[in-house]
Amino acid sequence: MTKMRELASEGLCYRHEKIWVLDQRLLPHQEEWIVCENPSHMALLITRLSVRGAPLIGVAAALALADFALKGASALAIQEAAALLRASRPTAVNLMWALDSMLSVELSPKALAQRAEKIFLDDVFMCEALGNHGAALVQAGESVMTYCNAGALATAGIGTAVGVIRRAFDEGKIKHVYVNETRPLLQGGRLTAWELSKHHIPHTLICDNMAATVLREKKVQRIFVGADRIARNGDFANKVGTYSLAIVARHHGVPLYCVAPSSTLDLHCADGSRIPIEERAASEVRGVTGSFGSVSWAPETSGVFNPAFDVTPIELAEGIVLEQGYFSTKSIVDQWGLEFLNKSCAR
Amino acid sequence: MTKMRELASEGLCYRHEKIWVLDQRLLPHQEEWIVCENPSHMALLITRLSVRGAPLIGVAAALALADFALKGASALAIQEAAALLRASRPTAVNLMWALDSMLSVELSPKALAQRAEKIFLDDVFMCEALGNHGAALVQAGESVMTYCNAGALATAGIGTAVGVIRRAFDEGKIKHVYVNETRPLLQGGRLTAWELSKHHIPHTLICDNMAATVLREKKVQRIFVGADRIARNGDFANKVGTYSLAIVARHHGVPLYCVAPSSTLDLHCADGSRIPIEERAASEVRGVTGSFGSVSWAPETSGVFNPAFDVTPIELAEGIVLEQGYFSTKSIVDQWGLEFLNKSCAR
Repeated sequence: MTKMRELASEGLCYRHEKIWVLDQRLLPHQEEWIVCENPSHMALLITRLSVRGAPLIGVAAALALADFALKGASALAIQEAAALLRASRPTAVNLMWALDSMLSVELSPKALAQRAEKIFLDDVFMCEALGNHGAALVQAGESVMTYCNAGALATAGIGTAVGVIRRAFDEGKIKHVYVNETRPLLQGGRLTAWELSKHHIPHTLICDNMAATVLREKKVQRIFVGADRIARNGDFANKVGTYSLAIVARHHGVPLYCVAPSSTLDLHCADGSRIPIEERAASEVRGVTGSFGSVSWAPETSGVFNPAFDVTPIELAEGIVLEQGYFSTKSIVDQWGLEFLNKSCAR
Repeated sequence: MTKMRELASEGLCYRHEKIWVLDQRLLPHQEEWIVCENPSHMALLITRLSVRGAPLIGVAAALALADFALKGASALAIQEAAALLRASRPTAVNLMWALDSMLSVELSPKALAQRAEKIFLDDVFMCEALGNHGAALVQAGESVMTYCNAGALATAGIGTAVGVIRRAFDEGKIKHVYVNETRPLLQGGRLTAWELSKHHIPHTLICDNMAATVLREKKVQRIFVGADRIARNGDFANKVGTYSLAIVARHHGVPLYCVAPSSTLDLHCADGSRIPIEERAASEVRGVTGSFGSVSWAPETSGVFNPAFDVTPIELAEGIVLEQGYFSTKSIVDQWGLEFLNKSCAR
C-alpha cells in the first residue's frame, strides 16, 4: 500500500497517516493540534486562518490533496478539491503554484504523495537558503525589525523573514528584534512574539504606528518582511501595513528587505497595480477576536475599510532575498535580476 | 455667596454647583456622567483618561480648582491641588498653561471662578476660530483624514482638528472622513468615530497602518491632526502615530495640518527633541482594555515599547492652524510666523 513519509514542522505535520495542523488562531495562549480530515476541511482551516502564511498554505494544500488521494479519492474529486483549495486564499500565489505542481503529475496516490513530500521538503530547504542569503546582509551587533509573521509558523521550515533573523541570531549577529503587532489580526503580536520567545531571541513588541519612532531613534538597522505575491517588476504584496512601514523606513534611510520563496513570484503579473487585494470583514477593524477573547470598541454606525494586503513598490525596498540569492532593487529595476528570476522560475 | 456660572460642553459641564465629566473610557457603548468631587479626583480622572484631550484637561483642571475654592479650600490647599493636577499629564502644555493662569489671580473663590469661566469660554471661542481658519483650507468636494481624537470630546467647544472637519462639513465642503483607529488606546476608533456618527458625518474607520493605502488611492486630499505640545520651531508632539502618518502623507503629497490652540505652544521648548515623551504600560500594547472588555493577545515574555506621543518635525506638515490664523510651515521656518506666535502668546 502506498504511503507518504512522515513530515514535521512547527505548524504542520504528517504523522500516523494523518495531517496535523497547529491551530494558529489559539496562539500564543494555547498550542492545540487539529487533524485535518479532507481538502474541504483544509480549505476551511486556511480561510479561518488556523493555517496561514503564504508558503505554509501551499504545503498544507499539497498534503491535503495527497492525503485525499491516499484515502482513495478519484482524479475528478482531486481536481474539484484543488479548485476549492485554490479559492481559499486568492492573494497567495504559492498556493496556486503548489496546486498546479500537484495537478501536473499523474493523479495517483503514489505520484501525489511523492510530489507533496517534495513540496514540503523543498520548502524546508528554501527556508534554509533564504536564511543564509538574508543573514549575510546583517552586520554584527545590529538590531532588526519585522512585520506580521513570516516565521516558522508560516512555512514548513525556519521561516522566511523570521528565518533570516533566526539564522543571523544563531550566528551571533543580532542584538535585538522589534516586532510590529500588525493590526488588525495581530500576527506580529501573537505569532512572531511567540516564536521569538520560544527561541529565546530578545525582542520588543510595538504598535505598528510606533515603528517610525523606533527608526528615528536609530534603534534598528534593517527590516525584514515577507511577501504574499511578487510581481514581475519586483513590486510585492504583503500584509497590510508593509507599504506604510516601507515608506517610513525609506524616510529614515533604513533598508527594508522582502524575503520570500521564488514560488511567490507571479510572472504573469506585470506590476503591483495588478495584484488583487482581498478585503476582509469590518468586524476585524471594529475590534479584535481570537482565542484570547472578543471585544468591539467602535460604533456599528461607522463604516470600515479593511484591505488584507498592500503593495510595496520595489523602489521602496533595498532588495529581495530569494532562495536563489539576494537581488538588490537596482538589479531588479535594471532587469538582470528579473531575467534571472524569469529563467529560474520557468518550471 | 460667590457662584460660578453654569457651563456645558460635550464632555464637561458645571451644573447645579457640581463639575460633571463624561467618562470617555465608556464611549462609544455607554454615555455616563461622573461628578468630580475635588482636584485629586480630577487628577485621577485625567490619569485614567476619563477626561482627555489636551485643551479639555486644562479647562477641567481650572474648573476643579475653582470648585475647590468655592467649597472653601485655603490658598495653600489650592496650590497643592494645582501641583497634583500638574503632574497628572506631563506632556500636555495647556494643562500647565491653565494652571499657571489660575494661580496668577488672587486665590479667592470669586477670582478663581471668574478665571475658570474665562478659560472655559475662551476654549469655546478658540475652537470656533480654529474651525473657521481650518475650514478655509478645505476645497469643496474634498475628503479628509484625522488621527486620534481632537474633537469636541477633547475641548470645551467643537474641537480642534475635528472642529475644522465639522465646520467644513457644515459648509458643505467635505464628502467623507477617514478615521485612523489610533492604537493602542483607540481614541479614533472609539471617540472620533462616535463623534462623527453623532453628527451624521459620513466616515470610514481604518487601522493606522492602512492610511498609506487610502492616501495612495487618492481618497483623501487633506489631513487634520491635533497637538499636545508645539515647540518654538513648530515641531509638535501629538498622539503616537502622528509622525508616521506625517511621513506617509508627505510621501503621497497630501498636506497634513496641525490644528491646536496657541496654549499648546511651549516657547521654552526650542524644538521637538526637547519635548518629553511619556511612556505608558506594556499591557496597553499586549492587548486592549476598556469598558468594552479586556483582552490580551501577546506573550507575557515579550518586552514592550509604548511611547504615548511622538514628535512631528514641522517640515513634514503643511502648516499649523492656531486661533490667530493659519501659519504655513514656510512662515514658521522663515520665522515671521514664529515671531507672531511669540508676541501673541506673551501672556
